[in-house]
Amino acid sequence: MGYGHKDTSGEVASGDHETGSDNSFEDQNENRLQILLDFAKLPESVKRRVNALKNILVEYKSVESEFYHEIFELEKKFRDRFVPLLEKRNGIISGAVDPTDAEATWNYVNDAEALIGDLIKQNFDAQDESLNAVGKIEENTDVKGIPKFWLKVLLHAPVTAEMIVDNDQPILEHLTDVRVTYDNTDRKMSFSLNFYFSPNEYFKERVITKTYFFDNNLPAENPLLYEGPRIVRAQVSPITWNPGKNVTVKFVKKVKKHKNRKEVRTITKELKQDSFFNFFYPPPESLNDEDLDEETEDLLEEDFRIGSFIRDTLIPQAVLFFTGEYEDSDRPHTKRQPGKGNDEAPECNQS
Amino acid sequence: MGYGHKDTSGEVASGDHETGSDNSFEDQNENRLQILLDFAKLPESVKRRVNALKNILVEYKSVESEFYHEIFELEKKFRDRFVPLLEKRNGIISGAVDPTDAEATWNYVNDAEALIGDLIKQNFDAQDESLNAVGKIEENTDVKGIPKFWLKVLLHAPVTAEMIVDNDQPILEHLTDVRVTYDNTDRKMSFSLNFYFSPNEYFKERVITKTYFFDNNLPAENPLLYEGPRIVRAQVSPITWNPGKNVTVKFVKKVKKHKNRKEVRTITKELKQDSFFNFFYPPPESLNDEDLDEETEDLLEEDFRIGSFIRDTLIPQAVLFFTGEYEDSDRPHTKRQPGKGNDEAPECNQS
Repeated sequence: MGYGHKDTSGEVASGDHETGSDNSFEDQNENRLQILLDFAKLPESVKRRVNALKNILVEYKSVESEFYHEIFELEKKFRDRFVPLLEKRNGIISGAVDPTDAEATWNYVNDAEALIGDLIKQNFDAQDESLNAVGKIEENTDVKGIPKFWLKVLLHAPVTAEMIVDNDQPILEHLTDVRVTYDNTDRKMSFSLNFYFSPNEYFKERVITKTYFFDNNLPAENPLLYEGPRIVRAQVSPITWNPGKNVTVKFVKKVKKHKNRKEVRTITKELKQDSFFNFFYPPPESLNDEDLDEETEDLLEEDFRIGSFIRDTLIPQAVLFFTGEYEDSDRPHTKRQPGKGNDEAPECNQS
Repeated sequence: MGYGHKDTSGEVASGDHETGSDNSFEDQNENRLQILLDFAKLPESVKRRVNALKNILVEYKSVESEFYHEIFELEKKFRDRFVPLLEKRNGIISGAVDPTDAEATWNYVNDAEALIGDLIKQNFDAQDESLNAVGKIEENTDVKGIPKFWLKVLLHAPVTAEMIVDNDQPILEHLTDVRVTYDNTDRKMSFSLNFYFSPNEYFKERVITKTYFFDNNLPAENPLLYEGPRIVRAQVSPITWNPGKNVTVKFVKKVKKHKNRKEVRTITKELKQDSFFNFFYPPPESLNDEDLDEETEDLLEEDFRIGSFIRDTLIPQAVLFFTGEYEDSDRPHTKRQPGKGNDEAPECNQS
């Protein structure tokens, strides 16, 4: 079935890619050519049987597509079980409720402390200053909730951090929650990221919703290429910017002379600007569109990666981004306790 | 929930790793140190609330662990639906049944032909010889089933190919099927790879079973490190080799002189040999063992990657390895029809 098989096969393949000296990309292509040619030479009676196996694989893949649909249903069902936990989290962040002493006691290993130690060792320059800095704990005790929680979360996750410019920060201070919802009306699978904002001077909406649509059909031309549902399109609820507050555009005045006459006109030109809020203006195209140009395809794929990251990693583990404790186990990082094997080897996950 | 979140976050992260010039590993560690230090300076009242969020995340992760358990149940349920298809496949491979004309007609794009064209273009040297070779189709028409199907599948998948030595091939010609079974007695999740062999001169068993056991518990020391179930241990049913037929060992006779006396003794020493069948002698250790040495850990992880690859990719798509048509979408390959986006972008899968 392999809802996680991409990981596995990829990992192993790139592994032997590195080690095997006679296993270069060229050699592999040659091997492959040989395999394809050997197959071409087989008797017709055998090729007929192989075709039959391919047709069986098509049936297999269409059952697999149902499997993925049921996983989607399961995800939706579990999302409902997460809601009370996310409500509770939001209450604490907003300051609506304060945790009890029991709730506010962390009884496990404190990764942040270990990490600070490790990182200071690696950044000798910063050492003195940093160590002094830790001493100065802010003494403002009447803080409500956790100020700028979501802004900091977005700034601390490398994926979203690089999308944020200075102009965005005062707006993102109004971001109060990010939630996922699921939909599969008529078996058209989709999920939405909902960004909640407190009343602000920038736009009218209290929530901006970005919806990602999946294609879970077997490719018509060659159903054997099916590898599970994939996002093909994104759509965002409109943002009503207050006048002059849209940070995704800049208005530039240009003085334009008429060619022949001596008249002078001032033209206002709208220029695109870097902004986190460009995330809410994705290309309208679908990955399934015929004749999609490569640039748009890349833009869409990057957008879908970011959307999946927000859904799967940023939203649930927001607190670990806030503190700096989030560990991407796919990425080289300060190795702690090698040989424990507890925080490593995600490739071996069942999923 | 993120049963596929590893992919996504990893992809994006490595993406900006490449592009951002001031985004080096060192810089990121410095950024991270700053984030951790900024957190350390927050007022105690805020830190209490953050602890509460961490405790909520532990609850979240324990629900997530149930979610993965249900996915496992779903996978088991669907595996039952695949059984008739796999039986049918095996019938055709063994020659027990021959497909009807309808079953033996492939109505979709023939990737093999396109691939041969592309690869020949890339391998000019091989061109002449190859093109001639395709002409010579074997004329043996009374072939039964698909001879050496599984041996060829294993030889054509890079992951397993590099495990096979010459000595293994005559044994693997007896490999008639590979199947997965699932077990979750007492919620101890495991799956087994079952290798079926026709009667042979090498060993007594008709089936060799390798079982992989998952750990789906939240790590006791720090439950926030939970990332879904992961394989921790493998176990294989015993192989009863016929005398002198065990290809995983070699017996070397050594003449040994006694130090003082003039006696001469012949000692037979057992040496390990490279063989695919070493896959059936995995280390007995578990990834959860305390004080596991790094070498054993690497061996286990490699073994689990291979097991997952066989389960998720090799078994279902065996026919595509047989023909040479299997495309690992994670791997650089002969690019066909860029911009179509149909056979690319597996990172965007929901799963």
